[in-house]
This record gives sequence, structure tokens and C-alpha cells, in this order.
Amino acid sequence: MSLPVHIALLHGPDQPGLVARTAGWIFERGGNIVHADQHRDMESGIFFQRIEWIPASDATSAETEAFYTFASSIGMQARVTSSSHRPRVAIFVSKFDHCFHDLALRWQSSDYMCDVVAVVSNHRDLEETVRGYGLPFHFTPFTVETKAETEAAQLELLRSLDVELVILARYMQVLSEDFLKNLGRPVINIHHSFLPAFAGGRPYHQAAARGVKLIGATAHYATAVLDDGPIIQQDVTRVTHRHGVADLVRKGRDLEKIVLAQAVRWHLESRVLVYGNKTVVFD
Amino acid sequence: MSLPVHIALLHGPDQPGLVARTAGWIFERGGNIVHADQHRDMESGIFFQRIEWIPASDATSAETEAFYTFASSIGMQARVTSSSHRPRVAIFVSKFDHCFHDLALRWQSSDYMCDVVAVVSNHRDLEETVRGYGLPFHFTPFTVETKAETEAAQLELLRSLDVELVILARYMQVLSEDFLKNLGRPVINIHHSFLPAFAGGRPYHQAAARGVKLIGATAHYATAVLDDGPIIQQDVTRVTHRHGVADLVRKGRDLEKIVLAQAVRWHLESRVLVYGNKTVVFD
Amino acid sequence: MSLPVHIALLHGPDQPGLVARTAGWIFERGGNIVHADQHRDMESGIFFQRIEWIPASDATSAETEAFYTFASSIGMQARVTSSSHRPRVAIFVSKFDHCFHDLALRWQSSDYMCDVVAVVSNHRDLEETVRGYGLPFHFTPFTVETKAETEAAQLELLRSLDVELVILARYMQVLSEDFLKNLGRPVINIHHSFLPAFAGGRPYHQAAARGVKLIGATAHYATAVLDDGPIIQQDVTRVTHRHGVADLVRKGRDLEKIVLAQAVRWHLESRVLVYGNKTVVFD
Amino acid sequence: MSLPVHIALLHGPDQPGLVARTAGWIFERGGNIVHADQHRDMESGIFFQRIEWIPASDATSAETEAFYTFASSIGMQARVTSSSHRPRVAIFVSKFDHCFHDLALRWQSSDYMCDVVAVVSNHRDLEETVRGYGLPFHFTPFTVETKAETEAAQLELLRSLDVELVILARYMQVLSEDFLKNLGRPVINIHHSFLPAFAGGRPYHQAAARGVKLIGATAHYATAVLDDGPIIQQDVTRVTHRHGVADLVRKGRDLEKIVLAQAVRWHLESRVLVYGNKTVVFD
Repeated sequence: MSLPVHIALLHGPDQPGLVARTAGWIFERGGNIVHADQHRDMESGIFFQRIEWIPASDATSAETEAFYTFASSIGMQARVTSSSHRPRVAIFVSKFDHCFHDLALRWQSSDYMCDVVAVVSNHRDLEETVRGYGLPFHFTPFTVETKAETEAAQLELLRSLDVELVILARYMQVLSEDFLKNLGRPVINIHHSFLPAFAGGRPYHQAAARGVKLIGATAHYATAVLDDGPIIQQDVTRVTHRHGVADLVRKGRDLEKIVLAQAVRWHLESRVLVYGNKTVVFD
Repeated sequence: MSLPVHIALLHGPDQPGLVARTAGWIFERGGNIVHADQHRDMESGIFFQRIEWIPASDATSAETEAFYTFASSIGMQARVTSSSHRPRVAIFVSKFDHCFHDLALRWQSSDYMCDVVAVVSNHRDLEETVRGYGLPFHFTPFTVETKAETEAAQLELLRSLDVELVILARYMQVLSEDFLKNLGRPVINIHHSFLPAFAGGRPYHQAAARGVKLIGATAHYATAVLDDGPIIQQDVTRVTHRHGVADLVRKGRDLEKIVLAQAVRWHLESRVLVYGNKTVVFD
Repeated sequence: MSLPVHIALLHGPDQPGLVARTAGWIFERGGNIVHADQHRDMESGIFFQRIEWIPASDATSAETEAFYTFASSIGMQARVTSSSHRPRVAIFVSKFDHCFHDLALRWQSSDYMCDVVAVVSNHRDLEETVRGYGLPFHFTPFTVETKAETEAAQLELLRSLDVELVILARYMQVLSEDFLKNLGRPVINIHHSFLPAFAGGRPYHQAAARGVKLIGATAHYATAVLDDGPIIQQDVTRVTHRHGVADLVRKGRDLEKIVLAQAVRWHLESRVLVYGNKTVVFD
Repeated sequence: MSLPVHIALLHGPDQPGLVARTAGWIFERGGNIVHADQHRDMESGIFFQRIEWIPASDATSAETEAFYTFASSIGMQARVTSSSHRPRVAIFVSKFDHCFHDLALRWQSSDYMCDVVAVVSNHRDLEETVRGYGLPFHFTPFTVETKAETEAAQLELLRSLDVELVILARYMQVLSEDFLKNLGRPVINIHHSFLPAFAGGRPYHQAAARGVKLIGATAHYATAVLDDGPIIQQDVTRVTHRHGVADLVRKGRDLEKIVLAQAVRWHLESRVLVYGNKTVVFD
């Protein structure tokens, strides 16, 4: 789309007339609604809306400010972005490169509307790979003893670059609650998931030993609880007894790429609204 | 949901303010919008909307009439139904019973909000099966020579019962253009579909001979062109060289059941809007 | 297939020449191998085979006996069946009828090669439904206090009918370890499964609250550990925030039907070999 | 697997004792069968087998020669490879890079057991990209008038490099019947596929106009008939009315990558046996 559009994600207590008021506010200011999608959670009585519109003038920040005021007046929490804004993104990696390549290629081919401003890793293994895409690589070594220091350095880096989204592309460390709280920006993580779930290490070995017929991957916003947090996207792939652990790992990699890529796309397009421990994805 | 809601499906040329006007109209009359979903076809410039609301009063037909007038005033075609209305449905069958059983069981368990008022067949094979569900069975024998007479009799039956939806549950005859035009009510059909497509008879034999890895089924509104018409739902299932023709047919049956059941559900819930030769499904 | 074939499922420690010996044994006796499928678990060093052959003579039991002797001589455990044998099956139900209808219709249409000799329930709700298919219904009321008595009565019934397979079609009671051990015949169960897994009651409510994007079902052989045991088949279906608890339950029902039906088919066709807590499914 | 294994793909008229004879031949020479999978096409009476074994000696070419003689003696066509052999592969591209990147990354990470010895293109667009992987790029410009010359040059190149497999990774030209015949080596192609199929140009536009709910991709061996030839792998992805042409193209790209990658893997692992216009895939 060539025209810059405004996108608002709203949620708050349901009340009669919300759709009419929001649409009316935009219409009265000469805006044109391009897309609008609503949802009402029946159990919680919460109203959710994603609305895209073309404003009458190109005074982007004024329109945004005015909308926040309006949303507040009807008791809604809002997040507004403009399609002309390119979010600043940092990718965290460890040693596995499959998710990184997948994201970097999508970014490189302008498939993603964002600027990748940093790649951060606790290992040097992918340094050359990262630089091959012309991306800045930041080495932040990590030991249990230095976790606090490392996270402080990472936090400073992310702030100095004004990073708006962190993607954990198979970053094999758990971020601390403090880090997440201080960062105050969304962090998307990808992890394998199985039916049934397996606690402890080497989940693919456990899955093979248990003879599962499906393996899965889940992309979610990171919280301080490992592999928990609001789910954005999930998918599975079929496996049989013919697949050994190495096959499961390989199939898992392909799945992780596609699920993470989808979750990142939805986030960048302002399609994901979080409330409580769940998401509403306006796809 | 226990409260009766109104559901409108709208479409027409896009123009600024449509969302605001529709929502405003409902709000001003004291109605409460429960769900609203919009879509704009960028290429054709057509606006589509599905909107569910609880009217202030229970004067159902007055509200419906008023909405039609309003829709017309903004250049929109509309179809309005109330959730308290149970559509009257006729099921057409031939000799295969799998889709019929599936639909009948969903109807029997109140999973479908509709009244099945007639089962029509060109064979007597399923008569006992149909009566086993307490449903009226109508035998309308069919030969090439008597096609016009048979269709005339079927038409009279459907009209006398005020049927609002016809489901072809593996009815192995093509309905004539005249029949469809004179009926003037939607007809949902299910048929197998393959990649690539196969012309001519015995498609499962052709698919097996061609070594396809997927077989599919498509539910669509019937038009006079065989197996054509606006697509409502499609799905596929995986097959291998180990599956012979009988396996393909069996797997096809399971697929046909699930795809037809889904399409019927969406239609009954007023989620399907047809324009041109395609559908917008507000799921 | 009209010719009666023998089907053997073998497993035991791998050693050179196993495929040659088995095939040689059949060939020397004038048999013709119709299908053969092998698998070697690399980690455990176990060899698995499913082999179908047409014996030279129709002395079924002699061929079977001879094969058991042969299998034993090469250190293999074997299970041999003939395609002319129709297993005697009991179906356990509680109040939900969807899986029962699905199985009964497949049995009724000769889609399953088995004889359903009993339907057992701890409730009378489905009595009429069961009898409608011409199947014998056995009411075995159940309370926590009478569990031992009920299971003893059920065991006596199953033995008196020489039942070879029990299918738990949404039977809402956990069978005791003693029951399963004394029965000594396979029991197939179906249950929902989620990513992540949810402990405790009302799993669909938990899944909705957690905002899962997939719901799943798993068919497995029952063991004394609830919802555990060797997995035969699994599948998932996609859900969104638009689906409330009732939708999840409804979608779960359709999934349970298809997954249980597939698992039962594979079992009846002697395609499932259990070892340890996993299965090899020769599909 | 670290041990070099031999893999034979056999097919020919079915006769009693084939499994026993093949297994016996290997066993008598001291070999150990690691995997064996058979299939009998009931309609055509053709027997198919894939068999993996560890020979007693490492005299690879002698074992291969002996096996060909043996296969011939039992009326079977055979193709034998050793797991220590790395096939020499050429990739043909035009301007789209998604399938190329996907294949190149799998090759780079040693996920594929093959040597990519040439990348051939009728455009210079991907030259830098290809060289970035350290792969040789060959520009073979193409016009309708020069098709014969271009193909002659390509043929000479492929022969001089002893290429054993050609992958068309979105190469937008149809290879002539002569080219394919003179090459005499398998060529794998990927193309989109739809339900229903669309003839003519701009298939994604046609699919969007027709409102399809699934889009698909098919990997197949190339024949002189466009987009025809034995199917190796197929898959689909779900789309809705919300997806415009650009979304369909983007989703199609992700599907093409995964389907082509799977087909290439199966080919490289000698899992695909072609006969007539179909394949047997021993996965």
C-alpha cells in the first residue's frame, strides 16, 4: 500500500456504541477507514478493536495524539502506529542460524517493514554470518556469574539504539524478569512444543522416546517464566517412528522458522493485541 | 448465546464513512453491536460487512425492515436475519450416506440451528436411514427423459415447504440452470478436488494413476456449471503410493463430511457473503 | 482384498539376516509376500517388521503355529492374525455420543473389519441410541465405592464375550491398573491434548483462557496412568480468539472422532506394534 | 550415519519370492540390511523396493555391479547408490531468489548430501547473491530465437561438470523435450497449484478472483509438458478473502520453498522411484 495509514489497537471494558464512536471520530475528522476488526471476549466483557484509517491530513503525530486522548475518553487503552513508521528491531541469537537467516532474508527482501539495528549474541559463532548481511553484530558473553552485567550492557545497547522490538531467534538464554521489566518493549520468542509436553532437557530425545506423532513450535511474547507468555502463533508437523532424533530436530527447525516469521510479521503489522496472558491476533 | 441478535451482511461500492454510518444507525436506535467485521476488496473497490447487534426492542421484523431501508440509502445490498430464526433446510441425497449421516447427527444434537424439513432422493436406498432420524423422505425418481418433470416436482415440494437452503449431500445429479433460477434460494454442494484437476469420470482412479500426494474436497454454492460456483470451504488430506483407489475414496468421504459440515455451519450462521463468483467468509 | 492373508507383527533384537530369514521362511513354504515393512530403532537396536503374505494352503491355524515357532527361533516376539478373522470389539461410552456414532457408522457400513459385540456404559443416556444400531447395551453403574465391583462385572462380561479389543469412546472413567492387567487385551482411548498441556479439570476453559492457537486430540493405548500410554495417532486443528469455549469443545469433538477412527482402523489392520511406551505404526 | 550404506531402488513385474531373493542375495554376501521397504501396485502388478544395506567389504563399485547383474536376473530395473557418493547438482534460477536461498542454506549447513557445482540463470539479477555463497554462476541469456543455442550451451556445461541432478528453483523457462532427452538426468521443478486449476497467465490473480480458500505448490520431475510430470511432493496453505494477490504470492513463496526442499531431500536420499507418470516415495 502506498498511502500511509494509521493503525490503532484498542481494548477496554465493553459498552454500547464503541464501534460507532470510534468510526464516528475518524469520519468526522475526514479520515477514511480502510479496515476495522472487532472482538468481544464474552467471558471477560472486554472489547478489542483494530482499525486502519487514512487521515485527512498528514500531520501524523497530531492525529496520533488526538486519538490517544479520544481513546482515553471512552475508557480504552490504545496503541497507535503509522504505516510509514519502520520499527527498530534487535535480533538475539546464540549458535543456531536457521531462524536468523530466515528473518534476515525477509528483512533484506523488504518483506518486513522494519529496520534491523542490532544482532546480539552470547557467542561469536554467527558473527561472520551476521556481518555478511551488513548488519551490526554485538558480542555479549554470558556466564551465570555475569548474567546481571551482561543484561545491563544489553539493556544499555537496546536503549541507545531505541529498539522497539526484540526477537529471540533461538537465543538460548532465559531473560530475567528485571531485564524484561526495564526494557519495557515487546520480546518475541520461539520454542518447540510437544503433545504431551516434556519437562527437563533434551526435549527432542524425550519426544522420540515417547513416540509422538506430531512436533510443534510456539511463538510467544517472552515473560520471566520460561517458554510461557502470551501465544502469538503455533503450528505442528507430522512425524513417524521412522524419524530419529536428528530428523525431529531438522523438522523442528523448519517449523520454528515459519512460526517465528509469521509471529514477527503479525507484530510488525500491528495485528497482535495482548491482554492478560493471551493475545487477540487480527489476521 | 441466549439473546436474539440481528445479523446483517452488507456489500456495495466503498465510500468514506460506511463503518461509522452503519454503527451510528444501530447505536442511535439503542442497539448494541456484538460483533462487526469489515472487508474492502482493493481491486474491485467493494465494501463488505457482517454486523451482529442486539436491538433495543424485540420488534424483529420492524428492525429488519428499517435496516433494509437504511442499507439502501447508503447504496448497499443487505441480507438480515435474526438468530431466533431457524432456516428451513432440504437435503438432497442419492446412494452415499456418509454426508447425510454427518449432517443429520449435527442437526439431531442441536449443533445446527435449522429445521430439516425434507430429504429428497432420486433413489430409495436411503429411505429407511432417513426415516430412522424421524425425517420425511421424498422419492423423486430421475431419468434423462424425465429431468424436467422431476425438477418441477422438486421445485413445487421445496416451495410448498418454504425451504430456504438446499444441501446437496452427494446428490449425484446436476441441477439445471432453470431449476436454480426458479428456486432462487442458495444450494450448497460438495465435490472432490484434486491437484491437478481431472476432467472426465472416475476422478479417484485418475488421481491414483497420477500419483497425487494430496486429495481435496470443495464446498461451494451450486451454479448451473458443474462443480463450479462460489467456493465456501476447501480442505485436503495427504495420501501416498500405499493408498489404492479404495483408500482414496474412503479418505475422500471423511474429507467431504468435514468440509460440507463446515460450509453449512458458516451459511447457517450468516457468515458467507457471495459476490460475483467468490465468497467472503466472516469466520 | 478377497484372498485371506496372514499378517505378522514381529519385534526383537536386531541381527544380520532377519529380513532374509523371514522372507525365506515364507517363500520356502510356498507363500507369497504381499507387503513387508521393516524398521530398525537405531538407539535401542530393536528390529520391527510387519509382513503380509498369502499362504500356500488355507490351513490357517497350522501356518500361524508354525510361524510362532519360527519367530521364536530367531529371537522375535510375534503376533499373527488372518485377514479372515474379525476381531470382537467392545465400545465403552458415558454420555457423549459423537465418537460412538462415528465408530458405529463405520462398523455398520462395513468400513471396519470387526464385530462389535457389546457397548458398555456407566450411564443409561445412550441406551436407545446404541440399540438403534442393533447393538447390545450393558449398563454398569459406577460410583467410587463400587468401582471394584463394577470393574469385576465388566471384566466378566468382556471375557464371556471373548472381547479382543476395547475402545473407550469418551468413557469418562479411568480404568484401574488391575482391570487392565486382568483384561490382558488392548484398550484404545481418545483424549484432548493441548500445547501447552493443562493439568486439572476443564481443559477447554484453560485453553481458551491461555489463548492457544491449536487444539489437539491423541489416541493411545490405555495404561493405568491417566491419558498416558503408547500414542497411536494425534492431530490438531486451528483456533483463534474468535472461538469461545463452546467452539473449542465442538471443534475438539470433530477432532476426537477422526483421530480415534484412524487409530482403531490401524489397530484392526494389525498396523500398530507397541514396545516400551511407544508405537511403530506401519501405515 | 557414519557407515557407508548401499541403497538400491528396484522395480519390475511382481513374482513370488522377490523379497526373499533380494534379502537372501545381500545376506549371503555378508551384507546387513539396515532398511527395506516394499510396495506392490495392485492394479499394475508392479513390485517396488527400496533397500539399504551395509556391504561386507568396502569394494563399492564391485558390489554395485554385482547387484545390477542380480537385479537383472530377477527381471528388475535397479538404481544403486552409495551413501558416500555426493551427487553433483546444478540449480537453475531466474530472478526470484527465495527457493535459491533456501536450497543454498541447506547445502551450506551440510543438511543436504550433495555438491552444488553450478548455478545457471537467464538473468544476471542473482549473480552477486550466488557468488556470496561461493558458488559458480553461469549466465545463459535466453530469447525465443536463441532457445536452441542457449540450451545447447547449458547442456554442454552440465555434461562438462558431470551434473547428476538439475533443480529448477523458480527458473521461469520451459525446458524443451530435446534438452531433457539429451540431458538424460532427472530435473526437479516447483510450481504453484490451485484447486481448481487455472490455465493461462497470472494464476495468483485468477486464484484471488476466484476466491480460493487454499493455495498449493507441487514439486515434480520435469517433462516436456509444462508443469506436468511425476509428482514428488505437494502441500497447501490456507488463505482467506483478506489475502490480496500480494499475500497469495508471498504465501506461495513460503510454500514453494518447503515443498521443493522436501522433494530435493527425498531425491538425494534415493527415496523416489519413478514409473510411468507417477512416483513411489519411500519416506
